[in-house]
Amino acid sequence: MELAELLNRIKPLDKERMIEAQRHLDNLTKPIGSLGHLETIAKVIRGISCEIHPQNIKKGIIIMCADNGVVVEGVSSCPKEVTATVTENFSRGFTGVNVLSRLAKADLFVVDMGVDADLSGEEIINRKIRNGTWNMANGPAMTRNEAIKAINIGVEMVTELKNKGYNLIGTGEMGIGNTTTSSAICAVLTNSHPREVVGRGAGLSTESLENKVRVVERAIEVNLPDKNDPIDVLTKIGGFDIAGLVGCFIGAAINRVPIVMDGIITYAAALLAIRLNPTIREYIFASHASDEPCTDRFLNAMETKAILNLGMRLGEGTGSALGMIIIEAAMRTYFEMGTFNDAKIEKYIPLT
Amino acid sequence: MELAELLNRIKPLDKERMIEAQRHLDNLTKPIGSLGHLETIAKVIRGISCEIHPQNIKKGIIIMCADNGVVVEGVSSCPKEVTATVTENFSRGFTGVNVLSRLAKADLFVVDMGVDADLSGEEIINRKIRNGTWNMANGPAMTRNEAIKAINIGVEMVTELKNKGYNLIGTGEMGIGNTTTSSAICAVLTNSHPREVVGRGAGLSTESLENKVRVVERAIEVNLPDKNDPIDVLTKIGGFDIAGLVGCFIGAAINRVPIVMDGIITYAAALLAIRLNPTIREYIFASHASDEPCTDRFLNAMETKAILNLGMRLGEGTGSALGMIIIEAAMRTYFEMGTFNDAKIEKYIPLT
Repeated sequence: MELAELLNRIKPLDKERMIEAQRHLDNLTKPIGSLGHLETIAKVIRGISCEIHPQNIKKGIIIMCADNGVVVEGVSSCPKEVTATVTENFSRGFTGVNVLSRLAKADLFVVDMGVDADLSGEEIINRKIRNGTWNMANGPAMTRNEAIKAINIGVEMVTELKNKGYNLIGTGEMGIGNTTTSSAICAVLTNSHPREVVGRGAGLSTESLENKVRVVERAIEVNLPDKNDPIDVLTKIGGFDIAGLVGCFIGAAINRVPIVMDGIITYAAALLAIRLNPTIREYIFASHASDEPCTDRFLNAMETKAILNLGMRLGEGTGSALGMIIIEAAMRTYFEMGTFNDAKIEKYIPLT
Repeated sequence: MELAELLNRIKPLDKERMIEAQRHLDNLTKPIGSLGHLETIAKVIRGISCEIHPQNIKKGIIIMCADNGVVVEGVSSCPKEVTATVTENFSRGFTGVNVLSRLAKADLFVVDMGVDADLSGEEIINRKIRNGTWNMANGPAMTRNEAIKAINIGVEMVTELKNKGYNLIGTGEMGIGNTTTSSAICAVLTNSHPREVVGRGAGLSTESLENKVRVVERAIEVNLPDKNDPIDVLTKIGGFDIAGLVGCFIGAAINRVPIVMDGIITYAAALLAIRLNPTIREYIFASHASDEPCTDRFLNAMETKAILNLGMRLGEGTGSALGMIIIEAAMRTYFEMGTFNDAKIEKYIPLT
């Protein structure tokens, strides 16, 4: 489908329902506002009009996996084959996101958007655009058509999940080299120097970090992405994983389902989506603040605050899984706490 | 039992086990340190030598309830009868901590330490010292003997839970007026002026907040608590809820079981316990950063960082419940994630 047509379908939150939600929250047997961020979360989710009740909450985490041509520049501390191996390991149950999604009772949807290998494992959803992007340090990572195609896949994934009853979507990714693409996108979209936003990723030495900064500088110089055209930015310095995730955020807003960001790769995708249509922001929750240096710039640019601050930087969707538990907690307090009537208290706390 | 004898039983964490735990964490299939705070939590819990596995994790939250004589000074926005009503409501399933402890799979233990009412409800554990403390603005809130007696009750509660197989303990409280006692304790123990640490509690007006500051000033002037004698501080400006909680923290360290703080009332008790024996600090986790103004002073004095920062200030044990979920997440990653051997990856991430 045409991108413009997709973006046009997005509507803002239902303000009436949010006012009603606030009234309900203020009538629960607790001091006004005393559940803090949990109350904000519940109110926004009511505004999304997605019916999440403790009885029907159904969580799914979409993990977009792809290789990045830029790894030939030595920007990562591990070989690119790790992308394929970890993508396959998601089906074996012992990765970080496997463990935490079991705790969160979230189902995983592992999508091959462009891993440079023939993957085995029937649980991997094959949507391969190509065996990895081109090296963005020499020119565009992909064609504009490929970017649009990948976005459409993300939209379709979320639509499919929504149709299957999922009402809370998490995001995750796997792709060696994708903190490089994400920090490049951060530099362009937030007018930052690469040195301010590029981080050590999985564990770069100081020397290799210097090289990563120079590679990001080069990718921006060579490609001159137009920051006012998010698709141009995505095409030139993004990845198939990020492109798929952009589609997930768009798809969530179209389908009116709350969606949760994980780490900086998902921040990059979310900010691109928001630049395409600012209303998308209302559907997005920041699960945690990644320990990578571009985190603050991304979250500030989105005018959002992370739910958790645990110094995590593993990716995969691990933060999403934990954030989704807190969102469930918010919806449970909303629906399961008693009101002043139930509590036999005339007025617990005055509105002063 | 004599307090000194109890405190003497406390041993530091097992440093050998912590080194072993770090080695295990570094061998899990993830970049070194990339699970951030979750790794620290797992390491400390291994050092406590409390065997928490995903299969046997058993969580209990002890809620200490008591009335405070100081409420006659108009320090709270709600009538003191709310203490009794909410304490009874804990048995009715719809309070904040009921909802969140169900999500966390934690059992509640509601203890009447000194509620000024004959409580109905067989689930309430009757350990009433007296029907509420005296007004600390005029003199000591309790006798030194009462303080010691209440501490012993807390120690016994945790010991009993440990013997029943509970290996992760949360704390909570209910007591109108207890943000007043807690902030008074904060002022004394952290050398702060009452104005810097007294907050609005459940929802005081600015005028009433001024009064609350003056009442705390008066309580300190009248009693002159000796900050080098934590029991003196507790006796003069504490409450039976706080005294019971001091015992819980001592009991957790004696029994080598991790214990989780909730909001500022539990911070006050924890800091008193730590001043009695600094080793107790190693057994305590801060579940969340309360929105009350004394939070930073308390957490800094304990040299600890909160797991969650959700702007909550409800008390009851609501923060403990959420924090215990994150602690479970930490232990699950520790035990359920694969190692590099499982992952078919030679070396995911070099130690650079």
